[in-house]
Amino acid sequence: MDFTASKKSRDLLERLQVFMDQHVYPSEHCHAEQLRAAENRFAALPLIDELKDKARKAGLWNLFVPPSHGEYVPHGGLTYSEYAPLAEVMGRVTWSPEVFNCNAPDTGNMEVFMNYGSKAQQEQWLKPLLAGAIRSSYAMTEPQVASSDATNIELRIDKQDGEWVLNGRKWFITGAMYERTKIFIVMGKSDPDNPDRHRQQSQVLVPWDTPGLSIVRPLTTLGYDDAPIGHAELLFNNVRVPLDNVLLGEGRGFEIAQGRLGPGRMHHCMRLIGAGQRSLELACQRAVSRSTFGRALSKHQSVREDISKSFSEIEMARLLVLKTCDKIDREGVQASVDMIAASKTTVPLLVQNLIDRCMQLHGAGGLTGDYFMAEAFNYARWCRQADGPDQVHQMALGKQIIDRYAG
Amino acid sequence: MDFTASKKSRDLLERLQVFMDQHVYPSEHCHAEQLRAAENRFAALPLIDELKDKARKAGLWNLFVPPSHGEYVPHGGLTYSEYAPLAEVMGRVTWSPEVFNCNAPDTGNMEVFMNYGSKAQQEQWLKPLLAGAIRSSYAMTEPQVASSDATNIELRIDKQDGEWVLNGRKWFITGAMYERTKIFIVMGKSDPDNPDRHRQQSQVLVPWDTPGLSIVRPLTTLGYDDAPIGHAELLFNNVRVPLDNVLLGEGRGFEIAQGRLGPGRMHHCMRLIGAGQRSLELACQRAVSRSTFGRALSKHQSVREDISKSFSEIEMARLLVLKTCDKIDREGVQASVDMIAASKTTVPLLVQNLIDRCMQLHGAGGLTGDYFMAEAFNYARWCRQADGPDQVHQMALGKQIIDRYAG
Amino acid sequence: MDFTASKKSRDLLERLQVFMDQHVYPSEHCHAEQLRAAENRFAALPLIDELKDKARKAGLWNLFVPPSHGEYVPHGGLTYSEYAPLAEVMGRVTWSPEVFNCNAPDTGNMEVFMNYGSKAQQEQWLKPLLAGAIRSSYAMTEPQVASSDATNIELRIDKQDGEWVLNGRKWFITGAMYERTKIFIVMGKSDPDNPDRHRQQSQVLVPWDTPGLSIVRPLTTLGYDDAPIGHAELLFNNVRVPLDNVLLGEGRGFEIAQGRLGPGRMHHCMRLIGAGQRSLELACQRAVSRSTFGRALSKHQSVREDISKSFSEIEMARLLVLKTCDKIDREGVQASVDMIAASKTTVPLLVQNLIDRCMQLHGAGGLTGDYFMAEAFNYARWCRQADGPDQVHQMALGKQIIDRYAG
Amino acid sequence: MDFTASKKSRDLLERLQVFMDQHVYPSEHCHAEQLRAAENRFAALPLIDELKDKARKAGLWNLFVPPSHGEYVPHGGLTYSEYAPLAEVMGRVTWSPEVFNCNAPDTGNMEVFMNYGSKAQQEQWLKPLLAGAIRSSYAMTEPQVASSDATNIELRIDKQDGEWVLNGRKWFITGAMYERTKIFIVMGKSDPDNPDRHRQQSQVLVPWDTPGLSIVRPLTTLGYDDAPIGHAELLFNNVRVPLDNVLLGEGRGFEIAQGRLGPGRMHHCMRLIGAGQRSLELACQRAVSRSTFGRALSKHQSVREDISKSFSEIEMARLLVLKTCDKIDREGVQASVDMIAASKTTVPLLVQNLIDRCMQLHGAGGLTGDYFMAEAFNYARWCRQADGPDQVHQMALGKQIIDRYAG
Repeated sequence: MDFTASKKSRDLLERLQVFMDQHVYPSEHCHAEQLRAAENRFAALPLIDELKDKARKAGLWNLFVPPSHGEYVPHGGLTYSEYAPLAEVMGRVTWSPEVFNCNAPDTGNMEVFMNYGSKAQQEQWLKPLLAGAIRSSYAMTEPQVASSDATNIELRIDKQDGEWVLNGRKWFITGAMYERTKIFIVMGKSDPDNPDRHRQQSQVLVPWDTPGLSIVRPLTTLGYDDAPIGHAELLFNNVRVPLDNVLLGEGRGFEIAQGRLGPGRMHHCMRLIGAGQRSLELACQRAVSRSTFGRALSKHQSVREDISKSFSEIEMARLLVLKTCDKIDREGVQASVDMIAASKTTVPLLVQNLIDRCMQLHGAGGLTGDYFMAEAFNYARWCRQADGPDQVHQMALGKQIIDRYAG
Repeated sequence: MDFTASKKSRDLLERLQVFMDQHVYPSEHCHAEQLRAAENRFAALPLIDELKDKARKAGLWNLFVPPSHGEYVPHGGLTYSEYAPLAEVMGRVTWSPEVFNCNAPDTGNMEVFMNYGSKAQQEQWLKPLLAGAIRSSYAMTEPQVASSDATNIELRIDKQDGEWVLNGRKWFITGAMYERTKIFIVMGKSDPDNPDRHRQQSQVLVPWDTPGLSIVRPLTTLGYDDAPIGHAELLFNNVRVPLDNVLLGEGRGFEIAQGRLGPGRMHHCMRLIGAGQRSLELACQRAVSRSTFGRALSKHQSVREDISKSFSEIEMARLLVLKTCDKIDREGVQASVDMIAASKTTVPLLVQNLIDRCMQLHGAGGLTGDYFMAEAFNYARWCRQADGPDQVHQMALGKQIIDRYAG
Repeated sequence: MDFTASKKSRDLLERLQVFMDQHVYPSEHCHAEQLRAAENRFAALPLIDELKDKARKAGLWNLFVPPSHGEYVPHGGLTYSEYAPLAEVMGRVTWSPEVFNCNAPDTGNMEVFMNYGSKAQQEQWLKPLLAGAIRSSYAMTEPQVASSDATNIELRIDKQDGEWVLNGRKWFITGAMYERTKIFIVMGKSDPDNPDRHRQQSQVLVPWDTPGLSIVRPLTTLGYDDAPIGHAELLFNNVRVPLDNVLLGEGRGFEIAQGRLGPGRMHHCMRLIGAGQRSLELACQRAVSRSTFGRALSKHQSVREDISKSFSEIEMARLLVLKTCDKIDREGVQASVDMIAASKTTVPLLVQNLIDRCMQLHGAGGLTGDYFMAEAFNYARWCRQADGPDQVHQMALGKQIIDRYAG
Repeated sequence: MDFTASKKSRDLLERLQVFMDQHVYPSEHCHAEQLRAAENRFAALPLIDELKDKARKAGLWNLFVPPSHGEYVPHGGLTYSEYAPLAEVMGRVTWSPEVFNCNAPDTGNMEVFMNYGSKAQQEQWLKPLLAGAIRSSYAMTEPQVASSDATNIELRIDKQDGEWVLNGRKWFITGAMYERTKIFIVMGKSDPDNPDRHRQQSQVLVPWDTPGLSIVRPLTTLGYDDAPIGHAELLFNNVRVPLDNVLLGEGRGFEIAQGRLGPGRMHHCMRLIGAGQRSLELACQRAVSRSTFGRALSKHQSVREDISKSFSEIEMARLLVLKTCDKIDREGVQASVDMIAASKTTVPLLVQNLIDRCMQLHGAGGLTGDYFMAEAFNYARWCRQADGPDQVHQMALGKQIIDRYAG
C-alpha cells in the first residue's frame, strides 16, 4: 500500500505550487477587477494571456493529457493518479485551470479529438486547442428534456443534400459565450428510429460562425455567469455542415459521450478537492483572526468541531478520488464506472456543505467576492447537476451494487 | 387551540393573493428584463412604481405596521400573527415586499422612527417612508469586527463644535446603493469608555448627501447584488450632522438596536416560509412534467420522499414562526427572545436546504434565473448571517434553555 | 390564533404532572429492579398495579377516550388536542402510559371495540380492558411479506364447518407475551380472490388460550424486549373461533385497519415529544454538572448549539403534532391523513436524532439504563417502523402533495 | 500510488474469508442460542472454544501483533495496513474477533504488556493472554468524572506499608464480567499533587480475585450487555497489591494510556468498516427479495440512492482507515494523531448512520436479533463514546489543524 504520488507528479506539484504562489494567488484581485471593468464580460482577459505564457514556459501546460496520448505533450502524459494532485491545486482558484490549458470543457473536447477525431479534424481543431489559441464547446444538454438520459435528446441531425442539417436547442453550453470559442461538438439524433437506442445519436463539428447557429442568452447559476467562459443557451436553425464533420462515424454519438464524460467528472472532483481544501485553510485563518464575546473563534469548541469535521471530510473525499483515479489507471474507464459514480455523487455535495460551513465562519463577508468561497460554492453546487444530476448516477450505481451483492 | 388567523388577516390574505395573481406573478419576467436592461442597476424600476400605485389603491400598503402604531395606517395595525400569513405570500416573489411598502430594511427603520423618533424626525423621515416616497438604510455591521457583538463596534460618533462627527466604516448596508435612499440610521460609539458597555453606543441620522459619507462599493452574496436595493460598503470620513440627529438620546443606541432587530428577524422568517412553500409547489409541478428513464419524476419513490419531507418541514417552520408571533403578540418582544432565536436559527437553514432539494429536482435549469429558486436560495443563505450569524443566537438561546431546565 | 390547550386539558395536565412527580418519577428505579428480578419478564409488575390503583382514584384514567365515546369515561372524552399534552407527559417515562390505562396497543384496540364491536363483544372484552383488568393484542404484521401493504397479508381466515379457521404467522405482536393479554384481534384474508383488494381482509377475535395459537418467541429491537408488554412472533395453526368473532363483518378488515392506525400513530408521536423534551432537560442538567478541560459543558459553544437546536426541534415537532390533532378534531381522521403522515414520518426520526445528541452529552453513561434516554431512543427508532415504515407513508404523502399542487 | 494490501495480508485475508465461510457465519445462530440458554451470561461459550481451536490450528491467531513484536507470533507481525483488511472481515460478526484472539480489550492489553511489562509480568500474564487461556480488563473510565480528560481521574493508588492500596470506582470496564478475566490493568492517581499533571497517574496490575475488588453490576448500552465479555462497574475498596505490580514505573500511567489508546481506536474503526460493509450487502440482498406495491425494492429509486450512498460512504471510511494505518506504519502513532482522531470521530458515526439506513430497508425485522445489524448499530454507537467521546478528539484535532494552517 502506498498513498504517495509518483516522483513525476510530485515534481510537477512542487513547480505548480511555486507558480501559484508567485503568479496566480497574487493576481486574484486583478482578475476580479479586469472582469468587472470589461465591456464584454465574455472577452478574453489580458491577465489570463500573460499567465498562460508564463505557464507554458514553465512547462505547466496541458497536464491533463494522459500517457495514452503522450505524443502530444513534452511531459509524455500523466496518469489520472498523477494528474489528480495537480488538478487539486488548480481548483484552489476557480479561474486558474485555463492558465494551464486544463480547463473544462476544453480538456474533455481535446480528448475527444485525440480519441475519435480524424487526422484532418485533429489538424484543424486539436492543434490550436492544445496551443491554447482557441476554445471549444460541447453541446449536449437540452432545455426541454431530461438529457441525462441520452435517448431523450431531441436536436435533429439530418442528412440532406450531402450535408448535415442541425435543428434544435441546447443549453448550459459551457464556453459558448467566450469570444475565443471557435468550434462546437454537437450531440444530436441522426437516426431517431433506430431500434438500438444507443445508435440513434451522432456528434458533429459546428464552427462557431456557421449560419443558423445563434446564442440565445447567457445563463447564470446561483447568480454567477462564470464569465468569461460562461454557459449559454443555443439555437440551431438549419445549421449546415459538411458530412466530414461527423466525429467517429454516424450513429456513434452515444459511444463518444460515454467515453468523454467519465474523465470530465473526475476532473471536476479533483478541482473541488482543492476548492474544499482552500476553504478549510481560510476557515483556520479566520478562526485565529476574529474574536467574539472575548474569545478567539479558534478556541470555541464548535469551531474546532467544524474544522475537525472539514479536515476529515476533505481527506475522505480526496482518497475516494485518488482511488478512483488509480482504478481508471489500472483497469480503464469502463471498469471504473462504479467508482466514478461514487466520486461524482459524493464529492460535489460534500464540498458544497464544507464550503457552506467555512463561509459561515467568515460572517457576512464570507458570502461576498472578497473570498473565493462563494464562487467555489457555486461551482460545487453546479457540479451536482453537471454531466447529469447526481440522482441519475446513483440510480446506475445503486443498481450495479445490488447486482454485485445480490446478483 | 386554534390555528386559524383572524378574520381581518384572512380577508387581507385573500385580497393579497388576488393581487399577486393579477399583478405580481405575471410581472416576474418584466422585472428581470427591466433590471437587466437598466443602465444603473440601483435605479428605481418603473414596474415597481406602477405596482406600488396599484397596491396602495388596493389597500395593501404598510401591512407590517403593528396595532401599537395603528394611527399611521388605515387598516389600524396588524399583530405579528395577522401579518405573518401576508408576509409569507410576499416572500413568494423576492422583490414583491417593496410593492406593498413592506420591505427590509425600511419596515424596521419605520418602526424605529415610530418608537424612538422625535416629532420632527418623524415629520421629516417617517412620513415619506410610509408614503413610499423615499427609502432608508440601517448602518450597523462593520467589516473589521464581529459586529454581532455590539460592544465590538468601532465607528466613532464624537461630539465636536456642537455637532456629531462620524468616522468609520460599515458594510452590508442594505439599501445604501438604491437611488431613493435618503436617510441612514447609523450606529456607532459615542462614549467608548463608559463602564456600562451597553451605554457606549448612540444612533444618529445621516442624510445620504452629507459630505464625508461615501459608498465604497456594492457587495454581492453568492453572486447576487440584490439590485436595485442592494448592499454596500460605506466610508464615514468626518461626517458632520446636527446634535438633534441623535435618536432617542445619547448612549441609547444599544437599546434601539435590541428593539429593532427582533421583529426584523421574524419578517425574514415569514417571507422565507413563502419562498420555501413556492419552491415546494414548483417542485410538484416539475415532478409531473418531466420523465426520466420512462417514468414520470412524480412516480419515483425518491421524489415522493423529497416532496413529503419538504411539505413536513415547511409546515413545521411555519408553525414555529406563527407560535413565535403569537408569543410576541401576547407577551412582547423581550419575553419572546427564546422563540425569536429559535425561529432565526432554524427557518433560514431549513428553507435553504429545502430550496436546494427543489432546485435539484429541476435539473440544471433550477439554478438559473428562469425560476425564482436560486435567488430565494441566496436570500435564505444570507439570512443565516443577517442580523447576526446563527451561532451567536444559538449561544444565547442555548444558555437561556440551560438556565431554564438546570437553573 | 391560540396555542393554548383547553381549560379541561390544562387542569388534567396539572394533576397529571403532580402525579408523575409524586408517584412515577420516584418509582423508576423500582420498576427497573422489579423487572430485573422477575422470574418471568412478561409477568405483571406489582409496582404497575399499585400505580394503576392510584391513577384510577386520581381520575387520571382512560384519558385517551375521545368525546365521541364520552359515555365510557367520567371525564366525558378528550379531543386529540386535549389529549396530546397529557400523552406527552406520559411519554417522559416509557412504561408510564399503562399506569393510566393509556398504553399501546390497548388504547387502539379499545377504540376498535368502541367503533366496530358488537354489544356482546364490548361486554366481554371492552369492559375489562377499560377497567385495566386484561390486556389485548392487535395482530397485523407478518414476517414473510411487506405487510404495510395490507394486500400482501397472507394469514388465512377460512370459513369451515360454521367456524373461522386461521392459519398463518404474525410477528411484532405487541403485548402478546404479556401474561394479562387475553384477546387478540387478528387481521387476515377471508376472501383472497375478491377483485376488490380492500374487501379481501377480515378481522376476527381470538382468545389467547384458543388451541392452535402459539407464541414462537419474543422479539427484541436494538436489544430491548420491552418487557413486560413485549413483542412476539405468533403461529396460527388451525385456530378455530366462532363466526360471531368477526369484527364489523366479513371483508371489512381493511376498513377497520384504516380507522385504527391513524390515531395510534399520533399517540406514538405525542409520547415521543415527551421523550424528546425530557432528554433535552436531562442534557441541560448534565451540562451544568460536568466540566471538561476546565470549563463547564454548559459554557462550551458546541453544547449551547446542541441545546438550542434541540429546543427548536422539539418545539417544531410538538407544533406539528398539535396542528395535526387540531385538524383531526375539526375535520376527522380521513381528511387529516396528510398531517398524520407528516407527523408519523417526521417526529420519530427527529426525536431519535435529538435523543442521540442528548445521550452523547452524557458520556458513556448516557447509553446505559441509568437514564431513560437509551430506552426512549429505541422507542423512537422502533416507531420509524411501527404501523408501517416511514417510506410507505412518504410515498402516499408525496403523491398527495404532488396532486395538490400539480393536479 | 498503490491501494492493494501486501501479499502476506492478501494471503491471510483469503484464508480468513474461507474460515469465516466455513466456521463462523454458519455458527451465528448457534452463538445466539448458547448465549440465550446460558445460566450465567458471562460464562465462556463452548462454541467460542471450538472455534478458537480451529482458528489457532489454521494459523489465524494473534493477527493483531505488529512487526515490532514479531517474536511473539509465527506470522512474524503484521503492520496496521496489513491487519486492517483482516480486522474488517472479523468485524462482520461482532463476536468473532475473540475466535482469532483479536478482541478488545485483550489486544490492547497484550500490547501494553509487550511494550511496558517487566519480564515477570509478561511471563505471568502476557503468555496466557497470547494463548487465549485467560482474558483481561483495562480500567480507566470513572462514573463521576469526565475521564476522557485523564487529569480528572479520581481513583487513588497510594503507597502504604510496601504495597499499593487502591480506592475508587470505575465503570465501562470491558471484560470485567467475563469469567475468564483474570487480570485488571488499573489507571489511578498515585501522586495527585504533582505539578506536572501528566505525572500524577500510575497503572497497576490487579488480579481479579484480589480482596476489596468487587463488581457492582453489569452495564448495558442501548439494551445490550455484550455478554459474555460485557462491561461492568467496579468498586476498589482498599485493594492491596505488591509494589512490583506497577507498570513501567510510578507516575507513568499517562504515558501508557497515550500509547495504548490510539491503536485501540483504529481496531474499532477497522472492524466497523466490516460491520458497515456487511450491512450494505444485507441491504442489497433484502432489496431483491422484497416487493412493495408491485415493485421490487431494488427498483425503487430511493433504495438505489440509499445503496449508492452507502457504498460510497463505506469506501471513503475504509480509505480513511487505511491511510491512517499507512501513516502509523511509516511515521508511528505519535505523528499520526491527526489521522487517528479523524478516523475515530468519523467512522463510528458514519457506520452508525449507514447501518440505520440498512436496518430501515429491512422493515421491523431489521431491528431484531435475526440480523446482525442491530447489534452492530449498538457497537458503532458505543464507539462514539469509547476511548473518549468524539467531541474531545475533535477538540484536539481542530486545534491541531488550525495551528497547521494558521500557525
